[in-house]
Amino acid sequence: MNETIDLILKRRSIRNFSKKLISEADLKSIVECGLFAPSARNKQNWHFTVITNKDRIEEINNLAIEGMGRIGVEKEEGFHIFYHAPVVIIISSKIEGFAEVNTGCVIENMSLAAKALGLGSCIIGQTKYVYQQANKADMNHVLKIPENYEHDISICFGYPEKGDEEAKPRKENVVDYIL
Amino acid sequence: MNETIDLILKRRSIRNFSKKLISEADLKSIVECGLFAPSARNKQNWHFTVITNKDRIEEINNLAIEGMGRIGVEKEEGFHIFYHAPVVIIISSKIEGFAEVNTGCVIENMSLAAKALGLGSCIIGQTKYVYQQANKADMNHVLKIPENYEHDISICFGYPEKGDEEAKPRKENVVDYIL
Repeated sequence: MNETIDLILKRRSIRNFSKKLISEADLKSIVECGLFAPSARNKQNWHFTVITNKDRIEEINNLAIEGMGRIGVEKEEGFHIFYHAPVVIIISSKIEGFAEVNTGCVIENMSLAAKALGLGSCIIGQTKYVYQQANKADMNHVLKIPENYEHDISICFGYPEKGDEEAKPRKENVVDYIL
Repeated sequence: MNETIDLILKRRSIRNFSKKLISEADLKSIVECGLFAPSARNKQNWHFTVITNKDRIEEINNLAIEGMGRIGVEKEEGFHIFYHAPVVIIISSKIEGFAEVNTGCVIENMSLAAKALGLGSCIIGQTKYVYQQANKADMNHVLKIPENYEHDISICFGYPEKGDEEAKPRKENVVDYIL
């Protein structure tokens, strides 16, 4: 059995985090793995906003929840877009060829690095709803997204509250072969 | 040292492949790792076309090179978009929220799985140039992309011809912290 392949097959989104904080060394390692993602023409045209400040995480959650309300996206009472995780990373990029594919490589590296360190993660698209609140420049300021960069997605991290669950079943018939 | 993190940091794009073929078991493992990528709302709205047929790989390369010529993208004589790799996988998806980010997660999983198996890979955007040749439906037929799915990107695999090189240097000042 190959350790990395085993880890890839066992990774799953975690939506229950304990209150235990992530060490600086582990966080640094996750960020570094994100930075070592491949990018089209090696442009590395991404930016990461790493947030461990609890008040700021709450603020972003509130902005997103209110934004969801404004456009009628319903969620149960008490829903938290980051599931109260202690660390959130916002990924943004300069919009040029394959930026979002690059971002996918970044978050997958981060997600696998987290699992390798015994941590859990969940990729969060809902940070996009903060943009329902005010103009893009102001919201980019809150998220510390540089000028000419666009919000892509975010990912949150923490220690899983529950034990390892299985990944969800995979769809069938999505692979064709030309042999 | 953590094996998976070490592997993430050492992964790099390979553009020189030996003639050695990839075993069926290794290819199956790479495809499976792609299928176990996360996807927004677990939609798994992707499709993989796995190509080991040398003639078909050459055909796609020729279509892409000709397409590049049509719109004036210059490349040196003899350039091969897949660097003569023995396996190519085309990733396509239904265009709905975060499809390209999902695809990034897929190719990064595949790329890391390949490295874990001693193989090399290169993510290839240039398959998009085949669409300069004929209408989208006809080209999707060549690439075996299902109806209502769109070409995202491709990735090729093989045994690296040269030894392990270092990943390219990383850009500085792309991470901001809110502590």
